[in-house]
Amino acid sequence: MTSQKPNQNVPIKAPKSLTPLLDRVASPDDLKLLQLEQLPTLSQEIRDEIVRVCSVGGLHLASSLGATDLIVALHYVLNSPRDKLLFDVGHQAYTHKILTGRRHLMPTLKKEGGLSGFTRVSESPHDAITVGHASTSLANALGMALARDALGQDHKVVAVIGDGALTGGMALAALNTIGDKQPNMLIVLNDNEMSISENVGAMNRFMRGLQVQKWFQEGEGAGKKAVSAISKPLAELMSRAKSSTRHFFDPASINPFAAMGLRYVGPVDGHNVIELAWLMDKLLDLSGPTILHIVTRKGKGLDMAEADPIKWHGPAKFDPVTHEFAAGKATYSWSNAFGDAVSELATLDPRVFVITPAMREGSGLVEYSKQHPDRYLDVGIAEEVAVTTAAGMGLQGLRPVVAIYSSFLQRAYDQVIHDVAIEHVPVIFAIDRAGVVGADGATHNGVFDLSFLRSVPGMRIGLPKDAHELRGMLKEAVRLGGPVAIRYPRGNTPRVEPGTWPELTWGQWERLNPGSEVVVLAAGKALEYARTALEDLPDVGLINARFVKPLDVDMLREVASSARALITVEDNSVVGGFGAAVLEELSRQNIPTPVRVLGVPDEFQEHASVERVHALSGMDAQAIRTVLAELGVGAMVEV
Amino acid sequence: MTSQKPNQNVPIKAPKSLTPLLDRVASPDDLKLLQLEQLPTLSQEIRDEIVRVCSVGGLHLASSLGATDLIVALHYVLNSPRDKLLFDVGHQAYTHKILTGRRHLMPTLKKEGGLSGFTRVSESPHDAITVGHASTSLANALGMALARDALGQDHKVVAVIGDGALTGGMALAALNTIGDKQPNMLIVLNDNEMSISENVGAMNRFMRGLQVQKWFQEGEGAGKKAVSAISKPLAELMSRAKSSTRHFFDPASINPFAAMGLRYVGPVDGHNVIELAWLMDKLLDLSGPTILHIVTRKGKGLDMAEADPIKWHGPAKFDPVTHEFAAGKATYSWSNAFGDAVSELATLDPRVFVITPAMREGSGLVEYSKQHPDRYLDVGIAEEVAVTTAAGMGLQGLRPVVAIYSSFLQRAYDQVIHDVAIEHVPVIFAIDRAGVVGADGATHNGVFDLSFLRSVPGMRIGLPKDAHELRGMLKEAVRLGGPVAIRYPRGNTPRVEPGTWPELTWGQWERLNPGSEVVVLAAGKALEYARTALEDLPDVGLINARFVKPLDVDMLREVASSARALITVEDNSVVGGFGAAVLEELSRQNIPTPVRVLGVPDEFQEHASVERVHALSGMDAQAIRTVLAELGVGAMVEV
Repeated sequence: MTSQKPNQNVPIKAPKSLTPLLDRVASPDDLKLLQLEQLPTLSQEIRDEIVRVCSVGGLHLASSLGATDLIVALHYVLNSPRDKLLFDVGHQAYTHKILTGRRHLMPTLKKEGGLSGFTRVSESPHDAITVGHASTSLANALGMALARDALGQDHKVVAVIGDGALTGGMALAALNTIGDKQPNMLIVLNDNEMSISENVGAMNRFMRGLQVQKWFQEGEGAGKKAVSAISKPLAELMSRAKSSTRHFFDPASINPFAAMGLRYVGPVDGHNVIELAWLMDKLLDLSGPTILHIVTRKGKGLDMAEADPIKWHGPAKFDPVTHEFAAGKATYSWSNAFGDAVSELATLDPRVFVITPAMREGSGLVEYSKQHPDRYLDVGIAEEVAVTTAAGMGLQGLRPVVAIYSSFLQRAYDQVIHDVAIEHVPVIFAIDRAGVVGADGATHNGVFDLSFLRSVPGMRIGLPKDAHELRGMLKEAVRLGGPVAIRYPRGNTPRVEPGTWPELTWGQWERLNPGSEVVVLAAGKALEYARTALEDLPDVGLINARFVKPLDVDMLREVASSARALITVEDNSVVGGFGAAVLEELSRQNIPTPVRVLGVPDEFQEHASVERVHALSGMDAQAIRTVLAELGVGAMVEV
Repeated sequence: MTSQKPNQNVPIKAPKSLTPLLDRVASPDDLKLLQLEQLPTLSQEIRDEIVRVCSVGGLHLASSLGATDLIVALHYVLNSPRDKLLFDVGHQAYTHKILTGRRHLMPTLKKEGGLSGFTRVSESPHDAITVGHASTSLANALGMALARDALGQDHKVVAVIGDGALTGGMALAALNTIGDKQPNMLIVLNDNEMSISENVGAMNRFMRGLQVQKWFQEGEGAGKKAVSAISKPLAELMSRAKSSTRHFFDPASINPFAAMGLRYVGPVDGHNVIELAWLMDKLLDLSGPTILHIVTRKGKGLDMAEADPIKWHGPAKFDPVTHEFAAGKATYSWSNAFGDAVSELATLDPRVFVITPAMREGSGLVEYSKQHPDRYLDVGIAEEVAVTTAAGMGLQGLRPVVAIYSSFLQRAYDQVIHDVAIEHVPVIFAIDRAGVVGADGATHNGVFDLSFLRSVPGMRIGLPKDAHELRGMLKEAVRLGGPVAIRYPRGNTPRVEPGTWPELTWGQWERLNPGSEVVVLAAGKALEYARTALEDLPDVGLINARFVKPLDVDMLREVASSARALITVEDNSVVGGFGAAVLEELSRQNIPTPVRVLGVPDEFQEHASVERVHALSGMDAQAIRTVLAELGVGAMVEV
């Protein structure tokens, strides 16, 4: 047989691929077979693919597009998984997933049994950390670098962190120790909302003020090119403002990274993938920690996303070709209900002051921030600061409201105890995304708050069954003073008319069904399941256990004394939550009525729909029916 | 009557006061009646009084002496309590207590019913915040300043923070928002362990590089004097090193405070009280946030304390005149037991790596840090970083041990869940000061850890009854992998010989008394009380419930099935702790045996001896006897 090249000009009949380069890349090793010059094309193919993948809605589009070039460059010069590549938050890592053998699984993103929306150690050897919360990558990278050195290994450690995440306390504190210990590592600062109040001239002054590295001076041509390439995107970025980072990069001042002992390089164009690969390769050979400051645009490559990256951060379903949004139905979320209520309340009471740790949109506070700009504070991704700043306000006579997701409140647990609860300071915690959140999975499930807040002395905890009750609790919390937590789930709830403020007494449950042989005590979201389960069982008692601290001990005593059994249902861990509170109280009152505790089991719940996770947890309507049948109640009613 | 002055030359027969100036100062108002020139003498009188007060032992001497001058200066120019004066940590505020009407109560410091060792809102209107943990003052001050502005008030807000506390993540993150929002406030950076690797010349270069304020240039004489006065203490300080702050003040680099948008002034001599008062008065009139960097010496005014401020940080009892320490008996603390065990273990297993958030001495790690310097990391006051750095190490094959106090672990709760537990990373938490700590009071009691750790999926929790069992648990934790928490109390324990490593199986309790009609389940420190209570009741069952997660469900089922009643005893909140775990398990197994839950009640415990707090909590030997008698057991035995 003679070796003969096939005729390249004969067209193959298969449909032409939209991604001819990407089709050749099934792993980081394949990527290295490409020419440096091919990387921009590959990046564009990946971006186009990400747009198609994200058109189903509910995925992180804009940040993934912005990070494509830097991830392509990193995988071109690193040897993952030997080298460790850490993504802060991890929602921008779609390109990383595509390049590390998971391209075919991208349609399963955030679906049950599918890929996680973030990086997960258990999902791929290429995912160095499991993540979802911000600001953890630097401490993790520090630990990995020190472990590497202790074990006599020599791989690289690279952390990619956004400008927002870098302002988180633990990221700053990690920098402090990184600057001290000087391990070999590269930190890529992915700066996509850079705020510059001066013009490009001032930016140039900033550049001149930097401690420019030796390689930078030596490889002058390349370095200068990298810098000059940035002018255009910078000019466009200049009109944007992000308060939390302004001073970090204020060209009139000086470089804090160098002050903390890190080699600082940048800023450079984060979309010039060729220059990035060249630069990263050089930086990875340096000893000690280096911070490479790159400027990127969220939504890069998709015009409408570049123009409105907030709208396209996690867009709803859109047409993958025309990029037009599918007609959506108008919804009203718990976050909207909170935002509306607190806006009205702030109008009524000048003591109300709302604080968010960088979650204005997610917490339903866009309107509030416009209506009450003088009583609104965004502290950036710094939950501890949010809570303790509220404590300071509460001590001075205000009624601060900390709007926070349940799983992020975990970050400020000590501040809740130490700064708020010990002196019973009037701080209100509006806890959104409490309970199972579904597609975001284990890192974001807010299923511990009832447990960790319940042990805080003096804390009041309420779980409204609907927006109406949320308003009543919020108003009552302002009136009561002292620490109050109001927790509500992800998802929608019927809209309530403005101006309605139901009266309620903190600690009084609501009896919905009068049955007394078996009584279901359901708190918050779980009440929906209980109602469904009891639809055709009117004789089973049902209580809206809307207060978990204090419990309604009188009503509990009353029903427990006459019932054969109680069933508690909650959208929280069964360890230490509402069910445990009932058990503790019955033990205290020496009431022997057996209690069946339903809720989220003592294990981390993976991503799937909220309803599906609740079903798997054994706490949905079907599960309640099953327990009732075990207690002989379903059968009794059927007879 | 003619007004006639008494003859000033006739000596009064009363004994001459050691503190003639201080005797005239019962409040900040009195202080303002003194001449500026009298302040140094007043400061010295206060320091002498603090030395006498602290000679009883167990009080914070060195830091209080170091802060006397700055506090005198602040109260001279402020109008407390109208102006808000916040002390970070609050252990350095003795001078503040003396100047604000509490001088006569100083002998009651940290005693039951007496003054707190820290500032407490509930103790005095002059105490702006309640504190005990580090790094909270800046966020509190931010909240107070924003509340002031929202309420249209115009008082001053001043925070005093040490260099160590400033490296805490939440302090750095608060600076970020303070720089952004620009409220009027003064931050006094009390820098007492400044590390300077260059000489005074480099310090001068640093000074020249600062953005010197207008007043500083105008009031040139005074400013220059303040600067020059610092040379001597700086020269002495230069040989010291504190890793966590080196880069902040590295004269070769640049000023990070200015980079964050704060007006920076300093460093100036923190013991020149006249200059300080002059300077602070000027700075308080400026708009926006100012950071005044002052250099002080811990132990100022007491030679031996200046020479060894660590020894004199919280000295034992000493002679108030000769300053010689009283002969103490040799003790062996739980911290020592841990330190010895982990040092040996690290010799046996190269994967062991110990991390402390600035608690080397308190955690018993002095010897370890000398024996294993390459596997020891102090991250400064940054508990979040300690835990997540450990996670990074654990992911890379090490067996990191985070040595941390229970109440400080509250600061890293999210990191325990998010960075360690979700992927079941092998991190060991050596939790010291768990349970009631006594004299340090509400801020330091570690009575929530069983509750907040128990709800973390996959977490193992052990409570050794003695140093022997601590060693067994530590070794087993290294073998097991996955997250493991071992918690032990403040106080002493019998010493154990090196090399002893008892075998134990995680989750297996130990039966101490075989009685079965009533069974006491006691965990950790509480076991001592149970043993005392049951000394003459050999028929009452007693179990060393040394594992709280997982419980020994087999033994629990066995004893609960035959017993008339169970009693649980724990040195933790009764909400969500060990007793709740037993209730939950019995509910799960549908075992109706009544359980009496003893532990720390659901309220904050004030300072008093550990034994006294336990007695007041109803969980000591007497309380156990009382419950047994209620169950008819004591009487039965007496017959």
